[in-house]
Amino acid sequence: MIPGQESAKPHLPAEAVLSKEMLLQRLKEDLIVSPILEKSQVGDGSVDISLGTRFIRSRRSKMTQIDFPSLNKEKIRSFQESVVVPFGEQYILHPRSFVLGCTFEFIALPLDICGFVLSRSSYGRAGLLIATATFVHPGWRGCLTLELENLGEIPIILHPLSAVGQLVLLNASKLPKQPEAKIIPVSPTFTTLNEDPRWKKIAALYPKTET
Amino acid sequence: MIPGQESAKPHLPAEAVLSKEMLLQRLKEDLIVSPILEKSQVGDGSVDISLGTRFIRSRRSKMTQIDFPSLNKEKIRSFQESVVVPFGEQYILHPRSFVLGCTFEFIALPLDICGFVLSRSSYGRAGLLIATATFVHPGWRGCLTLELENLGEIPIILHPLSAVGQLVLLNASKLPKQPEAKIIPVSPTFTTLNEDPRWKKIAALYPKTET
Amino acid sequence: MIPGQESAKPHLPAEAVLSKEMLLQRLKEDLIVSPILEKSQVGDGSVDISLGTRFIRSRRSKMTQIDFPSLNKEKIRSFQESVVVPFGEQYILHPRSFVLGCTFEFIALPLDICGFVLSRSSYGRAGLLIATATFVHPGWRGCLTLELENLGEIPIILHPLSAVGQLVLLNASKLPKQPEAKIIPVSPTFTTLNEDPRWKKIAALYPKTET
Repeated sequence: MIPGQESAKPHLPAEAVLSKEMLLQRLKEDLIVSPILEKSQVGDGSVDISLGTRFIRSRRSKMTQIDFPSLNKEKIRSFQESVVVPFGEQYILHPRSFVLGCTFEFIALPLDICGFVLSRSSYGRAGLLIATATFVHPGWRGCLTLELENLGEIPIILHPLSAVGQLVLLNASKLPKQPEAKIIPVSPTFTTLNEDPRWKKIAALYPKTET
Repeated sequence: MIPGQESAKPHLPAEAVLSKEMLLQRLKEDLIVSPILEKSQVGDGSVDISLGTRFIRSRRSKMTQIDFPSLNKEKIRSFQESVVVPFGEQYILHPRSFVLGCTFEFIALPLDICGFVLSRSSYGRAGLLIATATFVHPGWRGCLTLELENLGEIPIILHPLSAVGQLVLLNASKLPKQPEAKIIPVSPTFTTLNEDPRWKKIAALYPKTET
Repeated sequence: MIPGQESAKPHLPAEAVLSKEMLLQRLKEDLIVSPILEKSQVGDGSVDISLGTRFIRSRRSKMTQIDFPSLNKEKIRSFQESVVVPFGEQYILHPRSFVLGCTFEFIALPLDICGFVLSRSSYGRAGLLIATATFVHPGWRGCLTLELENLGEIPIILHPLSAVGQLVLLNASKLPKQPEAKIIPVSPTFTTLNEDPRWKKIAALYPKTET
């Protein structure tokens, strides 16, 4: 707010969250959430996102622990189980269980928009939590990995294409250029945090002790 | 930010989150969070919200699964158990259990303000998660349904009127008119997602297979 | 948005979330997230935050319930168990268990910036939820208490200094002055909600009944 200029309306500052009108305008220009199966998916401040067909669950019998610095691609592959649920079929998420899913929609955020991934209230009220890591950076591209947890007490039937979540979109200060991405995910991904350079720094500072 | 115009202060853009002063001003005008029992409920960027007296829990013995497209009002009614906890009494939320509550406050957001529902830190530190679906659209009216989950390891005593959550308020681009609402909820509601037109679209695309 | 002035660009309003450039600028001036061990910790819209060495877990054998109005410092002390994990060692968070941690970084937000604490996606995909109460008010100072819950099905090894979370920073309307703080936390804290004046108000309205 520029002091003086808007002093008569101290409560009318600029918009943080994008309206439906703005979202529709940006969807024509540089914001991609595709495919939109229905107009009603685009709301005020948010776009509904739906489940794709690919899931990843853990093979508990293959791992005693998740220790990021000691993971590698082979270990990750051996402990992940990929599940494909064709359109028209279902994935049953039992109480207290956890699975990675993926949005059906491909998403590309422009350089000046960021987002938060949230459950839709209908699913939240059945106990479905759809994300534990919810910030989407400006310029991000791909299908979003969804962390699906049934916090409720009754199994929830998940249908590919059903709109389980919403992406709330906010204005961000514009990036100077498109950030580089190692991969553009189109299925759920268990990120290779083992490649984080921070582990080397930690190991150098403090030699690793036995677990 | 318009390049050049504010180059001397690249870090002073407009406000996304409303200050206490702005919140108090808007509460006099067109923002309703009522009743406010204490001034300290209104903070910088957020208003504390408290528990009402009505809860909904699941009758596990009545349902093997929650399958949204096959739900109807009767099924929902048979599987929901409504619980009223009078003021001065308590609801005991055991570890790993889940219940729907409702705000004591009636809330009406103006057309240019949206919100996020979050736990208050004191409760969060005891393991109480108060919402899995947290975005409140501009123009929304009613008592908020709260999804209450005890992630901790010790039972938590819930008291009606206690301030378990907070509503963080952000500026949104102004809606042209008040959105229509089928209902204005004043108690916890298990939404009828079965009425979502998306199910018909999914069913048309992919004939339903057996669960 | 001032009508007319920006009519040619209806989709270019002011920034809600701070860019990397702005974050780096503010980190030189009045925003403190310290120490930053690596440049890559500062991203677009967010700063990665890491685990410190101090944890608090509950002594379940000491408490049947958490009832905030009847808590006092002695009770809280008897039921909390403080755990120190030296650098180079680990804390093992088993499935469905909950512990309070603390950021390694000391954080001080200026009067016009607020934040949300979120899991980093790598950890979220392993099932780690790092916060149930996530809004950080403008002007806040201290080490953030993190609520760590393993929602997944495999034990997660937590390393002090590993970057488990991120702090998303948003512009807020500027506070007139630094808010007063009773304490500036530098280790995980179980807040003394029992001191909340609201309990007296509730007790006056509705005399307490037996649990």
